[in-house]
Amino acid sequence: MTAAPNRPLPTSASYGITVRLYAVPSPSAVGELATAVGRAGGLVTAIDVSDSRPDRITVDVSCSAVNGEHAAEIVEAMRAVAGVTVHRVSDRTFLLHLGGKISVEPRVPLKTRDDLSMAYTPGVGRVSLALAEHPEDVAKLTVKGNAVAVVTDGSAVLGLGNLGPGAALPVMEGKAALFKRFGDIDAWPICLDTQDVDEIVATVRAISPGFGGINLEDISAPRCFEVERRLRELLDIPVFHDDQHGTAIVVSAALTNALRCVSKSLDGARIVVAGGGAAGTAIVTLLLAAGAGHVLVWDREGILSPTDTRLNPAKQELAVLTNPAGVTGNLHDALRGADVFIGVSGPGVLDAAWIADMAPGAVIFALANPDPEVDVDAAQRAASVVATGRSDYPNQINNVLAFPGVFRGLLDARAREVTIDMLLSAAQALAGCVSDEQLNATYIVPSVFDPAVPKAVAAAVREAAGTSR
Amino acid sequence: MTAAPNRPLPTSASYGITVRLYAVPSPSAVGELATAVGRAGGLVTAIDVSDSRPDRITVDVSCSAVNGEHAAEIVEAMRAVAGVTVHRVSDRTFLLHLGGKISVEPRVPLKTRDDLSMAYTPGVGRVSLALAEHPEDVAKLTVKGNAVAVVTDGSAVLGLGNLGPGAALPVMEGKAALFKRFGDIDAWPICLDTQDVDEIVATVRAISPGFGGINLEDISAPRCFEVERRLRELLDIPVFHDDQHGTAIVVSAALTNALRCVSKSLDGARIVVAGGGAAGTAIVTLLLAAGAGHVLVWDREGILSPTDTRLNPAKQELAVLTNPAGVTGNLHDALRGADVFIGVSGPGVLDAAWIADMAPGAVIFALANPDPEVDVDAAQRAASVVATGRSDYPNQINNVLAFPGVFRGLLDARAREVTIDMLLSAAQALAGCVSDEQLNATYIVPSVFDPAVPKAVAAAVREAAGTSR
Repeated sequence: MTAAPNRPLPTSASYGITVRLYAVPSPSAVGELATAVGRAGGLVTAIDVSDSRPDRITVDVSCSAVNGEHAAEIVEAMRAVAGVTVHRVSDRTFLLHLGGKISVEPRVPLKTRDDLSMAYTPGVGRVSLALAEHPEDVAKLTVKGNAVAVVTDGSAVLGLGNLGPGAALPVMEGKAALFKRFGDIDAWPICLDTQDVDEIVATVRAISPGFGGINLEDISAPRCFEVERRLRELLDIPVFHDDQHGTAIVVSAALTNALRCVSKSLDGARIVVAGGGAAGTAIVTLLLAAGAGHVLVWDREGILSPTDTRLNPAKQELAVLTNPAGVTGNLHDALRGADVFIGVSGPGVLDAAWIADMAPGAVIFALANPDPEVDVDAAQRAASVVATGRSDYPNQINNVLAFPGVFRGLLDARAREVTIDMLLSAAQALAGCVSDEQLNATYIVPSVFDPAVPKAVAAAVREAAGTSR
Repeated sequence: MTAAPNRPLPTSASYGITVRLYAVPSPSAVGELATAVGRAGGLVTAIDVSDSRPDRITVDVSCSAVNGEHAAEIVEAMRAVAGVTVHRVSDRTFLLHLGGKISVEPRVPLKTRDDLSMAYTPGVGRVSLALAEHPEDVAKLTVKGNAVAVVTDGSAVLGLGNLGPGAALPVMEGKAALFKRFGDIDAWPICLDTQDVDEIVATVRAISPGFGGINLEDISAPRCFEVERRLRELLDIPVFHDDQHGTAIVVSAALTNALRCVSKSLDGARIVVAGGGAAGTAIVTLLLAAGAGHVLVWDREGILSPTDTRLNPAKQELAVLTNPAGVTGNLHDALRGADVFIGVSGPGVLDAAWIADMAPGAVIFALANPDPEVDVDAAQRAASVVATGRSDYPNQINNVLAFPGVFRGLLDARAREVTIDMLLSAAQALAGCVSDEQLNATYIVPSVFDPAVPKAVAAAVREAAGTSR
């Protein structure tokens, strides 16, 4: 990980370590250790003297580092303190993952024979017979009504690439934990041992009877488009690719509020989206549906244009949607006079100097993670509103703001599909979670910990589901 | 449901109802209601006066019935009490199933931004990268190490037949709840929208990376044999068809103890197995591996004999294994002089009068559910040891005694397969849970609530896994 230049590197709990040290007992020992960590640029989060003997004390120092290399430097700094030996270094993130992050728990008592005879045989047999006769009651009398499969093929794990299904599991498990925490939803990770579109579709179709919704995750473009399209055709439960539609909802909500800040309208704003992949495509689709009047998409081929024969079919389609006039050029060309830059591409594609060529009151969303499309500090100086995907800057565009509420609403409504109306309503509701009093250029999205957020998003989706059925 | 003849019908909590009634206030009202239930053959489990007004009291009567028809009779009996009106009848088993019986819970804190940065992005990215490099650590750092997929195609749900995947879900969920309760295992139900062997195999293979074991359930014979065989070849995690091997373990353990009761040996005993389906095949295989010297299998074709051209390949194989001499005949023929009858077939195939033709000290396992192969009371008079699949007779042969401990052991050992040695060890350990002091003809298997049972079974499987790897 490298941070934006010209800025002190931020420490992160995700690089937290706990170091067990032995020290010669002395009144100054703990202070010297804390000082050593601080001088090495680490952030002390806890110090416990966990054992004390006449000849030595045991000290557990927990601290945050910038990255793995930095963590090693901090350990060396403590080792250099006189009288100190390092016993063990524990990585707190790995410790947290030991044994997994989710569990399955019974919701019914299983203490007595009577309990068993209701929850399992013979009582469960009556429920099964009833459901065979009334399949429409399955969602009501089983976990299906609250269950979501978090499905990946491990082909695009976070921004890290094709790591495969096993390595993707911690991410899917984390997502399942967030589903419960923010949406009270029972989500289970399904990591597929195939990256073949036909096999993915067949597998998800086959396991679908036990779930009330499918959340596709970290499947690389353009395969993700076909997987989603075909599953939506086949299944009678909603299918939602979070990397696309979750991102699109949050971006759309954030853009709504950013434009409120600069007093511009969506239909009048000139928007440039950098990145024509899964997220970019979904963002463009949703913004157009929301009423955006001028969108151009830029990718490695330049401004996507219908006459460009190098484009794959998905990008071709995007070009037709956004650029019927066939404008061509590079990103700098696209940005001249533009109001909004939305980057879902890669680090550093945007030169901060180009922002001066945009219209006054420029809005910059630089969402590549962990390294944004632009030097964020420079962008903050040049633009009116800046958002990123990172938690260490204001305005974090975080899918957690959308997917728990979206699925809560879908499940509550027993929705059989996801419609563009639902996505629009969700985005609108999310934008509405920031009041006029709260709104400013550094607060265009609400906190992920605001309990009103998933409720508002769910209510909007429920309502849209009601009117669209 | 019909019970064995000549025996008062047993009430069951699985047919429990709660009836809300309004009654004219009087000192005798509650007593009259309780009496009415008792006279109708119901068992009162609770009476609550939940509201009292000058003109009426509200009474909630909970009681157990024999079956649905009987429950209706009980309601009518209460309705006939003077001054009583029935407001609502609730089925307690259905109430229990509302919203499902299992949930997914986070095992890690998700309260602060730091929590999120360790359990999800960016911290989880480091874990994913580490697992991509060291796939052998996936089980340790994710739920995979404790996760079991409970997989069905809904083709043979309990004894109820081909009800399909949705109707099977309450059973699989119940199983998942039992997995946690008795084995501390995180099991998730996977109900398949296909009954095609190739598709089942492909689907389970595709979803296998997220699980440490596969529990096949309620898949009809003979497809279940091929599904299991092919999955065992394809996967590097254990595959266990509980209807086969779970049943075989418990039957084998129970038979060990039954033979202790009548002082006979397994190698000397003449054993007749009625039913050459999934359970019968697994029982025969395990008993032969345990040292049984004389086993005959009877099914609708008669005693399975290698020369019988009507047999399907699976039964043909069983015939070759058990009956090289080519004995033929009906069940009565098979039983003459036999020591043990093991029924995994259907109701009433065994005439209790035939038990007199068996050797002295006959052992009868009549495991068809809910209606055993024989009149159990008559069998109890004629035989030395009788076991059934029902909870209302002594010696219930219940798979809950086996599968939680088996999978606990498999997961603890990170086993890659299930071996016959593990099944034998599990059966032996289960039999050993009944001490010499406890053992008698009405106590050949331990209680499912004995916490020592899953521990002993798990330890045995772990040990067998250690020696077989």
